[in-house]
Amino acid sequence: MLTMSYYLSTQMAGTFENALKRTRAALQIEGFGVVSEIDIQRTLKEKIGVEFRPYMILGACNPALAHEALTLEEKVGTMLPCNVVIQETAAGVEVAAVDPVSSMQAIANADLLEKANDVAGKLRRVIAQLAPSNVQR
Amino acid sequence: MLTMSYYLSTQMAGTFENALKRTRAALQIEGFGVVSEIDIQRTLKEKIGVEFRPYMILGACNPALAHEALTLEEKVGTMLPCNVVIQETAAGVEVAAVDPVSSMQAIANADLLEKANDVAGKLRRVIAQLAPSNVQR
Repeated sequence: MLTMSYYLSTQMAGTFENALKRTRAALQIEGFGVVSEIDIQRTLKEKIGVEFRPYMILGACNPALAHEALTLEEKVGTMLPCNVVIQETAAGVEVAAVDPVSSMQAIANADLLEKANDVAGKLRRVIAQLAPSNVQR
Repeated sequence: MLTMSYYLSTQMAGTFENALKRTRAALQIEGFGVVSEIDIQRTLKEKIGVEFRPYMILGACNPALAHEALTLEEKVGTMLPCNVVIQETAAGVEVAAVDPVSSMQAIANADLLEKANDVAGKLRRVIAQLAPSNVQR
């Protein structure tokens, strides 16, 4: 089940650690490397002493598409990489990728938005790989 | 000179390295830690053999505000942290911070957008600190 809004998401079966591992693998299949990784649970604990649920932000970057985007729009780096959030929820583990068409809608650049649409297609396939019907047992 | 669009930016005097250092210091004054750092020049060279100008993406996070945002909107991590890009341009070194009000406009959550506005104010002060008239000599 894909939700269409500023993100594309699905619930995942299994543990948080396994969800992280499968997300990385699914990103790799679609040509994304993980160029940043933010552990929100750890950051909030260390910086302000707040307890938070497991929540990781992976920064996904397809270098060739990023290069094209940067060539079309020099400050698009303010919205790169494309984030993929893995978090524990009451229902289990959820993965949500930003929809770059949404986040970049404030950028008046038709060529860039076309690229963003290509990237959104790849992220949609990443999320589809991770949907419960595709769980590898 | 601040430009109002999906980013807030200014040209900076001095070297790229110095601009990076001053940007980190300015972020710290406004309560932002740097939680991610992506060297686009190095990434494009290593991954696809492309030569690119010096271009760094710093992920700026104010932990207390991030926590409030995450409490208001569980998938806002798809748009966090707030990126600050430092790049070499023909005119020198430029710094540009994302305007979170722009990037988050696709999120239908009035309380979140109010927080985004607070963060935009802080980022505006970061950029103002770095404007040439504020250069510390």
